[in-house]
Amino acid sequence: MINEKLPKIWYGGDYNPEQWDAETWAEDARMFKLAGIDVATINVFSWALIQPSEEEYDFSALDATIDRLYKDGVYICLATATGAHPAWMAKRYPDVLRVDKQGRKRKFGGRHNSCPNSPTYRKYAARLAAKLAERYKDHPGLLIWHVSNEYGGYCYCDNCAAAFRVWLKRRYGSLDAVNRAWNTRFWGHTFYDFDEIVPPSELSEEWGHNRTNFQGISLDYRRFQSESLLDCYKIEYDELKKVTPNVPVTTNLMGFYPELDYFEWAKHMDVVSWDNYPSIDTPVSFTAMTHDLMRGLKSGQPFMLMEQTPSQQNWQAYNALKRPGVMRLWSYQAVARGADTVMFFQLRRSIGACEKYHGAVIEHVGHEHTRVFRECAEVGRELGVLGDAILDARVESKAAIVYDWENRWAIELSSGPSVALNYPEEVHKYYEALFHMNVQTDMISVEEALDKYSLVIAPVMYMIKPGFADKVEAFVNRGGTFVTTFFSGIVNEIDLVTCGGYPGELRKVLGIWAEEIDALLPGQTNKIVMNGAVGALNGEYDGSILCDLIHLEGAEAIATYGEDFYKGMPAVTVNKYGEGEAWYVATSPDKAFMQGFLKNLCDKAGIRPILDTPEGLEATVRTKDGKRILFLLNHNKTASVADMGESVWTDALTGETRRGAVEVPAHGVVILTEGDASHV
Amino acid sequence: MINEKLPKIWYGGDYNPEQWDAETWAEDARMFKLAGIDVATINVFSWALIQPSEEEYDFSALDATIDRLYKDGVYICLATATGAHPAWMAKRYPDVLRVDKQGRKRKFGGRHNSCPNSPTYRKYAARLAAKLAERYKDHPGLLIWHVSNEYGGYCYCDNCAAAFRVWLKRRYGSLDAVNRAWNTRFWGHTFYDFDEIVPPSELSEEWGHNRTNFQGISLDYRRFQSESLLDCYKIEYDELKKVTPNVPVTTNLMGFYPELDYFEWAKHMDVVSWDNYPSIDTPVSFTAMTHDLMRGLKSGQPFMLMEQTPSQQNWQAYNALKRPGVMRLWSYQAVARGADTVMFFQLRRSIGACEKYHGAVIEHVGHEHTRVFRECAEVGRELGVLGDAILDARVESKAAIVYDWENRWAIELSSGPSVALNYPEEVHKYYEALFHMNVQTDMISVEEALDKYSLVIAPVMYMIKPGFADKVEAFVNRGGTFVTTFFSGIVNEIDLVTCGGYPGELRKVLGIWAEEIDALLPGQTNKIVMNGAVGALNGEYDGSILCDLIHLEGAEAIATYGEDFYKGMPAVTVNKYGEGEAWYVATSPDKAFMQGFLKNLCDKAGIRPILDTPEGLEATVRTKDGKRILFLLNHNKTASVADMGESVWTDALTGETRRGAVEVPAHGVVILTEGDASHV
Amino acid sequence: MINEKLPKIWYGGDYNPEQWDAETWAEDARMFKLAGIDVATINVFSWALIQPSEEEYDFSALDATIDRLYKDGVYICLATATGAHPAWMAKRYPDVLRVDKQGRKRKFGGRHNSCPNSPTYRKYAARLAAKLAERYKDHPGLLIWHVSNEYGGYCYCDNCAAAFRVWLKRRYGSLDAVNRAWNTRFWGHTFYDFDEIVPPSELSEEWGHNRTNFQGISLDYRRFQSESLLDCYKIEYDELKKVTPNVPVTTNLMGFYPELDYFEWAKHMDVVSWDNYPSIDTPVSFTAMTHDLMRGLKSGQPFMLMEQTPSQQNWQAYNALKRPGVMRLWSYQAVARGADTVMFFQLRRSIGACEKYHGAVIEHVGHEHTRVFRECAEVGRELGVLGDAILDARVESKAAIVYDWENRWAIELSSGPSVALNYPEEVHKYYEALFHMNVQTDMISVEEALDKYSLVIAPVMYMIKPGFADKVEAFVNRGGTFVTTFFSGIVNEIDLVTCGGYPGELRKVLGIWAEEIDALLPGQTNKIVMNGAVGALNGEYDGSILCDLIHLEGAEAIATYGEDFYKGMPAVTVNKYGEGEAWYVATSPDKAFMQGFLKNLCDKAGIRPILDTPEGLEATVRTKDGKRILFLLNHNKTASVADMGESVWTDALTGETRRGAVEVPAHGVVILTEGDASHV
Repeated sequence: MINEKLPKIWYGGDYNPEQWDAETWAEDARMFKLAGIDVATINVFSWALIQPSEEEYDFSALDATIDRLYKDGVYICLATATGAHPAWMAKRYPDVLRVDKQGRKRKFGGRHNSCPNSPTYRKYAARLAAKLAERYKDHPGLLIWHVSNEYGGYCYCDNCAAAFRVWLKRRYGSLDAVNRAWNTRFWGHTFYDFDEIVPPSELSEEWGHNRTNFQGISLDYRRFQSESLLDCYKIEYDELKKVTPNVPVTTNLMGFYPELDYFEWAKHMDVVSWDNYPSIDTPVSFTAMTHDLMRGLKSGQPFMLMEQTPSQQNWQAYNALKRPGVMRLWSYQAVARGADTVMFFQLRRSIGACEKYHGAVIEHVGHEHTRVFRECAEVGRELGVLGDAILDARVESKAAIVYDWENRWAIELSSGPSVALNYPEEVHKYYEALFHMNVQTDMISVEEALDKYSLVIAPVMYMIKPGFADKVEAFVNRGGTFVTTFFSGIVNEIDLVTCGGYPGELRKVLGIWAEEIDALLPGQTNKIVMNGAVGALNGEYDGSILCDLIHLEGAEAIATYGEDFYKGMPAVTVNKYGEGEAWYVATSPDKAFMQGFLKNLCDKAGIRPILDTPEGLEATVRTKDGKRILFLLNHNKTASVADMGESVWTDALTGETRRGAVEVPAHGVVILTEGDASHV
Repeated sequence: MINEKLPKIWYGGDYNPEQWDAETWAEDARMFKLAGIDVATINVFSWALIQPSEEEYDFSALDATIDRLYKDGVYICLATATGAHPAWMAKRYPDVLRVDKQGRKRKFGGRHNSCPNSPTYRKYAARLAAKLAERYKDHPGLLIWHVSNEYGGYCYCDNCAAAFRVWLKRRYGSLDAVNRAWNTRFWGHTFYDFDEIVPPSELSEEWGHNRTNFQGISLDYRRFQSESLLDCYKIEYDELKKVTPNVPVTTNLMGFYPELDYFEWAKHMDVVSWDNYPSIDTPVSFTAMTHDLMRGLKSGQPFMLMEQTPSQQNWQAYNALKRPGVMRLWSYQAVARGADTVMFFQLRRSIGACEKYHGAVIEHVGHEHTRVFRECAEVGRELGVLGDAILDARVESKAAIVYDWENRWAIELSSGPSVALNYPEEVHKYYEALFHMNVQTDMISVEEALDKYSLVIAPVMYMIKPGFADKVEAFVNRGGTFVTTFFSGIVNEIDLVTCGGYPGELRKVLGIWAEEIDALLPGQTNKIVMNGAVGALNGEYDGSILCDLIHLEGAEAIATYGEDFYKGMPAVTVNKYGEGEAWYVATSPDKAFMQGFLKNLCDKAGIRPILDTPEGLEATVRTKDGKRILFLLNHNKTASVADMGESVWTDALTGETRRGAVEVPAHGVVILTEGDASHV
Repeated sequence: MINEKLPKIWYGGDYNPEQWDAETWAEDARMFKLAGIDVATINVFSWALIQPSEEEYDFSALDATIDRLYKDGVYICLATATGAHPAWMAKRYPDVLRVDKQGRKRKFGGRHNSCPNSPTYRKYAARLAAKLAERYKDHPGLLIWHVSNEYGGYCYCDNCAAAFRVWLKRRYGSLDAVNRAWNTRFWGHTFYDFDEIVPPSELSEEWGHNRTNFQGISLDYRRFQSESLLDCYKIEYDELKKVTPNVPVTTNLMGFYPELDYFEWAKHMDVVSWDNYPSIDTPVSFTAMTHDLMRGLKSGQPFMLMEQTPSQQNWQAYNALKRPGVMRLWSYQAVARGADTVMFFQLRRSIGACEKYHGAVIEHVGHEHTRVFRECAEVGRELGVLGDAILDARVESKAAIVYDWENRWAIELSSGPSVALNYPEEVHKYYEALFHMNVQTDMISVEEALDKYSLVIAPVMYMIKPGFADKVEAFVNRGGTFVTTFFSGIVNEIDLVTCGGYPGELRKVLGIWAEEIDALLPGQTNKIVMNGAVGALNGEYDGSILCDLIHLEGAEAIATYGEDFYKGMPAVTVNKYGEGEAWYVATSPDKAFMQGFLKNLCDKAGIRPILDTPEGLEATVRTKDGKRILFLLNHNKTASVADMGESVWTDALTGETRRGAVEVPAHGVVILTEGDASHV
């Protein structure tokens, strides 16, 4: 449990009372009660208010807010306010201002704007965290610490350059090792002094979006910046923990956000929290995959849904309303996949600046008679009914998909073979097929143990880190099914190619050699022709983006290419290895292939779906104390029916006993607990 | 009359004799005579020539030019030459150089390049204006002063930053008021010292095109820059007026140019002038609307068509020729809508630099035997025939459309709900429907009195300035018909939301509450379903971009949405208020709806078209001394016929009496004066 | 012969042994032998290695490499290594770093990164060239000098600004002449001091891609930068030649690369070399044209194919593999058009940095059992068979197309009439029609003598340099056929318009006057209507982009426009002038017209195709000692048959006698030598 003070699914969100007056606060309190809100994230952007000058701190307003909220039954998710530095600090200490990738020194503005290697920023951020911890350590309303906000963005200033050199010395030991790692003899880049190394900005090695001359330095700079920001987080974390060792600490992450290696970050977080902002046309499977990734950051530990919008966003190009029921549906989708909180940005809409058209529980109209508020209040009521029934429940999976941020950086930085290759999208193709079968899947890091899985999929595993190949071999040897794809096994962790034939370290377990990689033009496809039917697969499918030209070295070709000069060469292979099988998918297949392919794999690996449901009806299970809680989530615009067969379930919201056909309304949710509660 | 020295429609344009030799000047004079040219705009870009160094002025060439032109029957529109600073000034006083939005200090180049808060620029511009006024105050050829040229562009330098802080102090009185106005408690932006405020550039709050974190500062910076440039204009204006109080002063505007609030500018101009550069695919209704806006800047006072091209432009992507007759057609379109001059850029084509492929009366071939010259000469001849017949005639309208530059800034700066919302285009949708009915329409500011109108349309009136809502209420109460749309009444003049329910201050007169605003994806539409036929409207129409979800609070729903979860909610409402009606159009309708909708409104408000004409035949009237001058402008590629019925008219160009069917040739123009002149 | 040491078509390419160890070197040697490789380009990016600090040079590794290669039968193309400066130099002497067009001082990174006017760069580049020459002047393996690498890119730093002013003084003599040349009275740009002139960057006169306010300064800056880089080349050239007067010197060019005037460069090169990197969808005619241009740089002298990829590139968006046979096909296409070398980038693939996915003879797998290696080895074997049979053979053409870099700059910098106008593409339209007929064509400079040609085509000859018009007149007068197009004859060499009527200096020989130039919208066309059939031309064709409105002044209209207000005006004209004809094509015709038009021209001019072949089967001839060597290059995916009729040929690769039908396999090549060798 995140914090036993509030033993239920927390419900609330970001709240900015400093933008309002006492009359509004009273109205807020009244409406929070109506909506069942019991947690408020405050102080997120209050640094300038609580530290109006270098030596002055003023916590009086914050004291009052916390007391008032607590009195009104609202617990506190207390932010440390370091997500945006004060204007006076920017003016007095320009080292807090970043230099952007274009080499431009920023001026005061925006948020998430501090150089992570600024001595000033680090000093005052640490001091502020310490002061907050000291001041509120004993407040009964304090539920959790929220460090800074949505960390992100890189800096290219001279302080960062200097820190980067120190980082390189620590990582590589010597300049010689740096030169080797980056292959600097290419293009005459040999360094003779660490001071010759400059950050890879648009003034040196990079241009456009993720284009670089030297993958090595660009990859390391991403590592370095991710770690620099993480250091900022850790400095605050340490200050908080020194004083309040028992209060959990988090910071809000952003799903597949590319710039930070969240697997590294999560190691330093007591609980993962994240902000979920799908567009109206984001596939629900992509959102589900992101929840699973956030759950996977700490190996399955439940996480916090820290932010979502009650209805509308403001920063997308076209900010559609969430349709009736959809906010509730997506809230429970989060819970179904491991969230133990449902929280919003924002509780009350601001009236000025760029987020005034971002949805809120309390809209500009100011009263409760809105569709959005009614939907929020209904979810609040239901979470009250659910109590702690779901809290701490786990999601159990036999299938896992490997995801790795550094692999993403390396793929995106790669010059060639195709700009069309998108790592998260390739991952999603595999995830999506499992999702539509209601097969529960963990999203795991390359460091995760594979023992508990029957099926492990590592799409586009371009970068093989030390030990990973051995782990895969052991996994397959013991009977596991491993799947990987084209453009895998190519480089080591410093992006140097493993010579001797692709897929490098994975070649043995896969039993193939990939001689060449063809890049297809946009819209161009090749055929994947099945060598006879294999389960659900038969006939021809399309492959696109890249086509590996592979040779069998022990593996068997399940399908071959149907076109071009490599017609007849293997397109999909399987290699028996020990007790298990290792598959290689040499191109990016269409959805029909994926559906049949994953079906076969699951059947063979003995992985059963949660439930067979009609298209669009998601079924997910969390398990607590050996008992299953089943979520039926209807993403369709019409009612859908789940066939529960003879098993007996209890509706967690109504207490009714359910068996056989269970109808889920359009955009509706049904939560069923295993067994017949009415007999208890 | 702009200047009684030349009591006719002035004909001429920009002329740059400094680029040519004496032989060419003689040839120019000969050809000007052939073309009926009687005014030349000179000295526009001659600062470097007449002030070759800091303390040196040399007017000898300008003296000679003015004398020569006057002798040859050409009057002078005398520019003050401050539209581009000399290179020596940029080198010696870099404060004249702007810093661009990317934070880059410009170097010498281009035009319209001076920082408006540069002490150097202001000092030498004022001095030059004073010297010109002193020197030419008694010259009989001096017709009008033309200050600088096409003012525009913003600067973000330190001088501007300092001036901005002064401007803020003046506007808000205190820093506290600034903080409140910009809602700086959002994202921790509280300022404790004016010096902490920096211009909202791409280094601070803005990015891309009109994207900002803080609408408040960005909106104020636009106001400040528009005023800073206006101050530059006013400094010169004052110098000129001190010496030549009776010579009119103007500067050339650019229609819907977004960066300057022309309603404010026009207050300081004796006569409005503007440069009309439609593309081959600009709707003629858009050009007409722009003329009407320019006329509206000074409440209907006739204006100057300062520039248009005889045929081709150079700066568009595809610079099509004006088809035969089109230059004449568009010239008279300007006159029909209030222009008392017809002037070109340029009288003779330059041979070097970027405008050498911009059309001219005298082309590179250098003689008069060109299509373009012949067409110019024909118009010149006709303007001679017309004499002062049209001069000072007014356009009388019962319908008005409200346009506001600050409203445009606020809409464009808004983060959400949709990037597809384009204020001028929404305004044009209403204008276009009126245009195609030949209903004369004024384009008015929010400050304009509404008394004389029967119908006032304020599309997307997002920002409600003090007093505007009261004025609208009074107007409707007295029997007027008011129309506004989705995304109206949302914010006050500092872009803070009016809480309590959209459309804020307009809610009472409209009798509705807009609860939510849905943004549609590109290409997506909802249906506008009529609740029974209303005049020309029946059945279903399309709405797009945004859909307000509104509730009736006294108003009646004329149409409802036909799709999505808000199907059945009102899409178009009307509220009886006092003697009048207030309409709300909750989405952006298609053309068919607009045509029927405006037809109904006009019918009901007793507004009659000038004439019912076939598609593409524009009919516009100017009225002088109670007598109507009718312009029939045929935008079709084939002849069109206007049915004048029994009324009797005189062809202003031929003197013939006309009644019944009047045929207007393809791309032709017929100008008719009320009554039978042959009987006079 | 480039160098008699190696009297055959050189075969090899870029080789970077410094990235590898001794074991790999041994393997390389073994595989080079297998592949028939006899030349290696080395030391291209080794500056940092051989000069590790300012006063230290270390040639030991290079010594060893050269000795080792030579011992293994591989000659040396020795690069001077100045294509990228060392990091220590950038740190110690920032003047070597460029300032980019956005005004940003670069930091260390990339390649081709040195300011061409940097005193430091010039000093150390010269010193390095001298040292290399001294050291290796007597090495038997030294075949040719390769100065720097792929020169390109402009700099806008203060050193360049100062050098530009010196360059201007030298070119124009006086500031007054500069002011006149650039027409600076336009927009008040008169300069009174050379120091007021700044480079035309995005901070001054330019923006976006090739957009400028002042064509004059922008054109001159391109000339100046091209010359500045050429000066860098010449400095090294002179150092090398001082020591090794008999060793040829080259630098590798890049075909139609826009930034450098290669005709000027070639004057200072002993042999032209270039890097050929077509995409999978580049028309083969475009590649052929580029070879012909490279051959034309030195008036027909055979050139070096310095680089091509064995299969894949890395820097394109979608890097498709070269299909089987295509590398061989394209190698022989180069040879067929004048190449006396076939060389690759790269012999062995690097494992780190941005070119690791660029194809190589030796792939990452490291052994010879790859498709790519087999194809390389086969070509190597064949080049051994061919020996010196083709060496020094010439391509003989009666047709020529004029191409001019400065003309391209002027066209691209032009503001108006259409952004759709692309000079190389217009040139290619004419070339393509000749190519498909197998008519051999020279690509020539405006300086080339026209005497030996029957047909000279100068598409879009916008800029007429001194003497060119006279030369054309003389050519036509003597019986030549000259063709030019719309937008020709407009300006002189300083981009000032030739007044008096387009096409200016070409008007007399063409017998027409172009009164106006209409720009068509994208997708828009006009009709070219033939006035009766002319040879292969009959009926109607499409014209697009621009349409000149022309009047006949002695010429005859062969076709007229079919649409719009200029329907009936001439679209294609021919003027009899002396013994010859001058044609004017007033718009950009479609392919069908081009095919017929060029057919007619060739028929009339007595120019015969090499051979009539089926579509896609290219036939090209090189002539040596009066004997013809015929290349049949099949670009089709299926076999094609050439009909040799009764003439007797010998297959140069097999020695077989061939006559009648010769089948060329899909993507295959047949090389035939005139006569029956078996009888010799």
